[in-house]
Amino acid sequence: MNKNITSQTLSRLPVYFNYLVSLPQERKNGNISATAIAEALGLNDVQVRKDLASVSSGGRPKVGYSASELMSDIGRFLGFENHDRVVVAGMGNFGRAMLEYNGFQAYGFDIVCGFDCNRERVGSTINGRPVRHIDEMDSFCRDNDIRIGIITVPETAAQEVCDRMAQAGIKYILNFAAVHINAPKGVAVHNENISLTLAMLARCH
Amino acid sequence: MNKNITSQTLSRLPVYFNYLVSLPQERKNGNISATAIAEALGLNDVQVRKDLASVSSGGRPKVGYSASELMSDIGRFLGFENHDRVVVAGMGNFGRAMLEYNGFQAYGFDIVCGFDCNRERVGSTINGRPVRHIDEMDSFCRDNDIRIGIITVPETAAQEVCDRMAQAGIKYILNFAAVHINAPKGVAVHNENISLTLAMLARCH
Repeated sequence: MNKNITSQTLSRLPVYFNYLVSLPQERKNGNISATAIAEALGLNDVQVRKDLASVSSGGRPKVGYSASELMSDIGRFLGFENHDRVVVAGMGNFGRAMLEYNGFQAYGFDIVCGFDCNRERVGSTINGRPVRHIDEMDSFCRDNDIRIGIITVPETAAQEVCDRMAQAGIKYILNFAAVHINAPKGVAVHNENISLTLAMLARCH
Repeated sequence: MNKNITSQTLSRLPVYFNYLVSLPQERKNGNISATAIAEALGLNDVQVRKDLASVSSGGRPKVGYSASELMSDIGRFLGFENHDRVVVAGMGNFGRAMLEYNGFQAYGFDIVCGFDCNRERVGSTINGRPVRHIDEMDSFCRDNDIRIGIITVPETAAQEVCDRMAQAGIKYILNFAAVHINAPKGVAVHNENISLTLAMLARCH
């Protein structure tokens, strides 16, 4: 990654990327100016112009950027052109929503399969993705060199599943169970607490 | 809210609260020390002791805090003893998971109902919570003074639903659709992008 970029610019790049990804297809096919992006996101347009110029050389005066090229340039810079395979443990509503969602792909993530311990769920496919028994997680992740896991199991099972993921060689875990999970050594865990996000939004504004 | 508290302390309080909420019931019934909390969360114990003392007077030397009292003290400080009613628009897997989840209550949120435009879903109940037609959202929210909404509709419908929530008097919107939503005037929107969270976790470590 370019070391000359400031951490402030780095923190805004995903925001631009997210905005470009969310544009309707016809706008993705066209040009977009730094000013238009700044306006849509409520940011300073000088700052946006500078940020974009630091990762893309495609900007032309009065025309702006090709939206799709700019998206590629930012994505490449952030590593989104990777294809990291991801597994999801816990096939309740939340886990199934993860398998049904196709939007991870723009960020370079392929959800490859789900795991569950319920025999009725095991063997089914969701959005073309197979659901395997949790006992197969270790061998599957090792055989396929999976580094990223998402936890959507009930709170009582979350720590155990996290530990099993770590044993299976997973290095990055996104935890949606609303419990504090201790990260095993060498593993990064992000605890996503939706209640807390809601509390911060509604109470701290 | 106490104005003498630093913003650093304020940002850590929800983390302590989340940790206490996630403890098993038998530990909630017992005592817990600042040192134990610091260790569990990987924080400096002097800092934790200071933070807790700023919102709770229940700490005793060698004994620590009653875990449940400390949780109440922090929760009261953060406004979690409120009972804010929340509605969810979009009854796909993700929205249904929101209605089935009971963990919002510890943070003072009651999910009161879901909305959808699919006639087959309308009229059902999920976890005791009714699913109403989206066209009833405006009158329901006004009649019940709802201030908080969660959006779990498909990306193409998210902005429209956001605008309808704003018209219905909703002031805080948590958006899970992976599109950039423009906040209507006087409304705070938090765009929760799970792909981006995953990207930051797996690529920026």
